[in-house]
Amino acid sequence: MTDHCFSATDIDAMEPRYRANLVNSVSGFKSASVVGTSQGRSYLENLAIVSSVVHVGAHPPLIGMVMRPHTVVRDTLHNIKTTGCYTLNQVHCDWTKQAHQTSARYPTEVSEFQATGLTPWYSKAFDAPFVNESPLKLAMKVESILPITANNTEFVIGRIHQVWINKEKISEQGQVDLSELGIACISGLDTYHKPERVARFAYAKP
Amino acid sequence: MTDHCFSATDIDAMEPRYRANLVNSVSGFKSASVVGTSQGRSYLENLAIVSSVVHVGAHPPLIGMVMRPHTVVRDTLHNIKTTGCYTLNQVHCDWTKQAHQTSARYPTEVSEFQATGLTPWYSKAFDAPFVNESPLKLAMKVESILPITANNTEFVIGRIHQVWINKEKISEQGQVDLSELGIACISGLDTYHKPERVARFAYAKP
Repeated sequence: MTDHCFSATDIDAMEPRYRANLVNSVSGFKSASVVGTSQGRSYLENLAIVSSVVHVGAHPPLIGMVMRPHTVVRDTLHNIKTTGCYTLNQVHCDWTKQAHQTSARYPTEVSEFQATGLTPWYSKAFDAPFVNESPLKLAMKVESILPITANNTEFVIGRIHQVWINKEKISEQGQVDLSELGIACISGLDTYHKPERVARFAYAKP
Repeated sequence: MTDHCFSATDIDAMEPRYRANLVNSVSGFKSASVVGTSQGRSYLENLAIVSSVVHVGAHPPLIGMVMRPHTVVRDTLHNIKTTGCYTLNQVHCDWTKQAHQTSARYPTEVSEFQATGLTPWYSKAFDAPFVNESPLKLAMKVESILPITANNTEFVIGRIHQVWINKEKISEQGQVDLSELGIACISGLDTYHKPERVARFAYAKP
């Protein structure tokens, strides 16, 4: 075992940007999703990348994401709280640059859709904007928001209201082929990856 | 737009295994981590794969994971609650089969380390077992556990106490090259992928 050990004290003493990069890396690969919101159909449309999306449960179908109220996603979080709805759009490898650019701190009156060139799209029955370019889009309704007091963030839990996807990429057993859809994943704060499938295993038994 | 739309009603009406596969897929790629626990150094060592690991914050360094109290991770969750400590070990592409096998429902007296052939390893100052084969190991201490009442699961938030890693795989800015370390990611419940880096972007500005 020749690996180096960083202690809690080492981490605490790190230069803030170095620490942010390191700690954001060590939890492993992360989902790359952009969140679409607005105050309603004729209002400004916000778009923000998040890498903190996590599966919470299948029945009911729940997805969580950690959000920081005092950062760039503030407008997005405000929209989510006031309308109760948002979209989650998986990022395709071809437009990781545009997806990443949504993390810039634009003035409140600027839509990240316009700023990045991604296209808003609406389904009939849902008022938050989807990203038309996304190969896997979810309409979400807020189920609950849990405050994380340890660092003043919030865990937003949403219930899946719609899934938009090419049916041919779903197996008979319901597995979605994310690689075949060209979906990206993230490491750290800034690095995008294209996953290639290496194995699928049966339900494990002793 | 030729994609199919699954509504909330469609999802609710799905055959349970199909729904589990589909809903577990649509949140995107997931971290592949195995959690090591025990009741103490001379007790049975438990190991369980989790795909619900999520970055919560860098300062303090916090990582969350969603756990189901009534499933195979019950022993792991019990150990975490009684000892307050656990390890998170990133899964390498070479041993995804063994990592997946830890999800089998072994009898309480069986160690998943022994059952799968993965090797327990201890650092001097920490009582939970690491996976020796893992290229990126974290010692974690429980910070808080939030109940998710929507589906009777729990969001376990831990603070990073130690990071074990080959220093050569960390950039000058603190980014860890997870692909270079051979780390895998998961889609759905059963599919493992090897991510290849496609892009790194600068901190985004308007």
